[in-house]
Amino acid sequence: MVQASICTIGDEILIGQIVDTNSSNISAALGSIGVRTTRMLSIGDKREEIISNLAQELRLNDIVVVTGGLGPTKDDITKDALAELSGSTGYKEHPGQLEMVYRILHARGLDVLDINKAQAMVPDRCEVIVNRLGTAPVMVFRFDGDSKFGHACTLYSLPGVPFEAIGALDDIISDIKAHHTLTDIYHRTVMTFGMAESALAKLIGPWEDSLPEDMHLAYLPNPITGVRLRLSIYGGRKEEEESRITQEFAKLRPILGNIMYSDKDDNLQSCIGELLRKSGMTVSAAESCTGGMISELMTSVSGSSEYYLGSVTSYANSVKENVLGVPAEIIEAHGAVSSECVARMAEGVRKITGSDFAIATSGIAGPGGGSEDKPVGLVWIGVCSPEGTKTQKLLFKGDRKRNIERFASYALNILRIEIEDYLNK
Amino acid sequence: MVQASICTIGDEILIGQIVDTNSSNISAALGSIGVRTTRMLSIGDKREEIISNLAQELRLNDIVVVTGGLGPTKDDITKDALAELSGSTGYKEHPGQLEMVYRILHARGLDVLDINKAQAMVPDRCEVIVNRLGTAPVMVFRFDGDSKFGHACTLYSLPGVPFEAIGALDDIISDIKAHHTLTDIYHRTVMTFGMAESALAKLIGPWEDSLPEDMHLAYLPNPITGVRLRLSIYGGRKEEEESRITQEFAKLRPILGNIMYSDKDDNLQSCIGELLRKSGMTVSAAESCTGGMISELMTSVSGSSEYYLGSVTSYANSVKENVLGVPAEIIEAHGAVSSECVARMAEGVRKITGSDFAIATSGIAGPGGGSEDKPVGLVWIGVCSPEGTKTQKLLFKGDRKRNIERFASYALNILRIEIEDYLNK
Repeated sequence: MVQASICTIGDEILIGQIVDTNSSNISAALGSIGVRTTRMLSIGDKREEIISNLAQELRLNDIVVVTGGLGPTKDDITKDALAELSGSTGYKEHPGQLEMVYRILHARGLDVLDINKAQAMVPDRCEVIVNRLGTAPVMVFRFDGDSKFGHACTLYSLPGVPFEAIGALDDIISDIKAHHTLTDIYHRTVMTFGMAESALAKLIGPWEDSLPEDMHLAYLPNPITGVRLRLSIYGGRKEEEESRITQEFAKLRPILGNIMYSDKDDNLQSCIGELLRKSGMTVSAAESCTGGMISELMTSVSGSSEYYLGSVTSYANSVKENVLGVPAEIIEAHGAVSSECVARMAEGVRKITGSDFAIATSGIAGPGGGSEDKPVGLVWIGVCSPEGTKTQKLLFKGDRKRNIERFASYALNILRIEIEDYLNK
Repeated sequence: MVQASICTIGDEILIGQIVDTNSSNISAALGSIGVRTTRMLSIGDKREEIISNLAQELRLNDIVVVTGGLGPTKDDITKDALAELSGSTGYKEHPGQLEMVYRILHARGLDVLDINKAQAMVPDRCEVIVNRLGTAPVMVFRFDGDSKFGHACTLYSLPGVPFEAIGALDDIISDIKAHHTLTDIYHRTVMTFGMAESALAKLIGPWEDSLPEDMHLAYLPNPITGVRLRLSIYGGRKEEEESRITQEFAKLRPILGNIMYSDKDDNLQSCIGELLRKSGMTVSAAESCTGGMISELMTSVSGSSEYYLGSVTSYANSVKENVLGVPAEIIEAHGAVSSECVARMAEGVRKITGSDFAIATSGIAGPGGGSEDKPVGLVWIGVCSPEGTKTQKLLFKGDRKRNIERFASYALNILRIEIEDYLNK
């Protein structure tokens, strides 16, 4: 099976200033055509380290995908390193990329500087795939069986800017398909929410033990999307494996009930979107402690304007009262973090937006603001349907960021179940 | 200088199902005490690959930090691999971690299952640092100069759950400090927003060329936070380097003007927070195309309730009209994506929340919904101060996610400059 290594280059990654999101996008794309990623590597902007590490990856893999270090500035040296690694004797200008440099910079109303033009200069041993989203070209270096790497292999150099790297993936994938005979790899994922990994493992233990030898189950816990269950099969015929995995997952549904919210790699907000779009109903949100995250998640789904009317982030009590119409007495009597307040918030936003459903949150994300009876990590969640309002109290132990994420994702799950129950009646 | 390698273990990372955020957190912590991260590596849940890769990293580095593969479920095999790698002859139960397993699961109202108890069993060659945030212990394996790795080195095994990995970092850092004499490494960052990397490079070129030999400048572009400029010095005395870098950055201020928004590693929302806290003023937001992201960014800053009153996400025009009070005629005459509408949105949310400042967005994030005169990527941004309302039109070329991020970050920057200008009068 064709094996690949993914290498990201940049001191900013090694010192932890930015998180590498390119590698996961690249490996997902490789996996989709049955190329197995064996290693991911991040190295710094050091010429000799780039050359020695890439040489080793080329010896061990059929394909090496490199991102980063192609910027116009002095600290980016990947191109020079690749020139040496590939035994290029000089640089050549690529007219197609040069034209793109002019087009992109002019579209942004910027002058084309010499360092911009230099972006279109590439080592003479490489093929260029024009980068339409940025000034740095995608470079392809092919090495045959007689190369110093001991076997035929290919190195793809992509820009480090995630948007540009993702944009180049389709071309890379077609190029790989054109040059390799690929065996299938097959993954499928079921999404669950609301049960801890270990409890889930116990619940589905018998099912897991009954899986065929060649199926591999993985648990992928995620505080936002819940625990993913992934079945993998390497090799085999895709259609066949697909139906085999579908059969196994079918046995899971009755075991998991509404803990399972999707039988594909999905998230709560797009599931909620599908339910609402099918039923022609709408939703709105009133957020205090989640500060806009529920709204941001809901609107991250393209087409969400069909069913998502809007939200009020009522961070200050005055906004809860004046915009959402929560009576001041309620807040005085029970506090803003209370069943009564969150119920009125949900009803308030449902009223002013005219939505069918509404979700509301009020809690204490921390680090400050907690008390004995209302500690940091406490959240009240209110949900309205055409049939009325329900509230629920949850308590989490985390830092501010994690608490807010948990508050938002549990609220989405409560909304998801409320909509499912209403539509199933 | 002490060198480290960071290895994340898990098929879910290699197939691109999750993004590795642990490595950046770990390397940032290592960097803060002068430990240089030379490589980051991600490998799969394959026993022999784990053993061979970790052995190589131990040969090449003083410290190897491993995360992941410690879950209670069958697919997690890191602990077994580490037992073999370390030449452990068996497992021992760690009473402290076992107690923590009971405490954590009971706090969550969960039963303690055998697979949970098994979390407290560790290879007999390791030292345990109790994990207070999760059931998997932190394991420390020390190897002396006579070890098969050819030199004294240490392997730290951390849980893969980011929240738990971050929680373990302080203990790891103290352990490293206790066992190594460390040379300083020093990084400092200046934040800019609103100028492209290449234009910035031209603007500050003379300054960059005048930098001392031992200072390394890096450009770190980020669509949300802008271009970071980072000066690094390895070795030397921290206090001394600190003042030297401060001197160099001082020369940058007059060159960059309000393009530079912070002289520390910061983001727009916390800068806005500092400005408002100092001046005792408040802000609110009215979001259409940004869908809650501005509000979420503003409230991600702890203590933001002091100055952030709230927001309205007016995704539907009816919400723009009924909640924000944008006249229907304005939307009919100019459309929702217009200077007139976004001005009324900002004024509307300022009025209903009673804030001093307000920011509003209305645009087309895509993929659908664009037209010839109002293409995907177009956004109108409105900002209110006590002195009145201004609007600005911007156009970006990106996918939905990137457009929304750009809309939100440019809006925050416009707000930041508006507040600065008002306070500087």
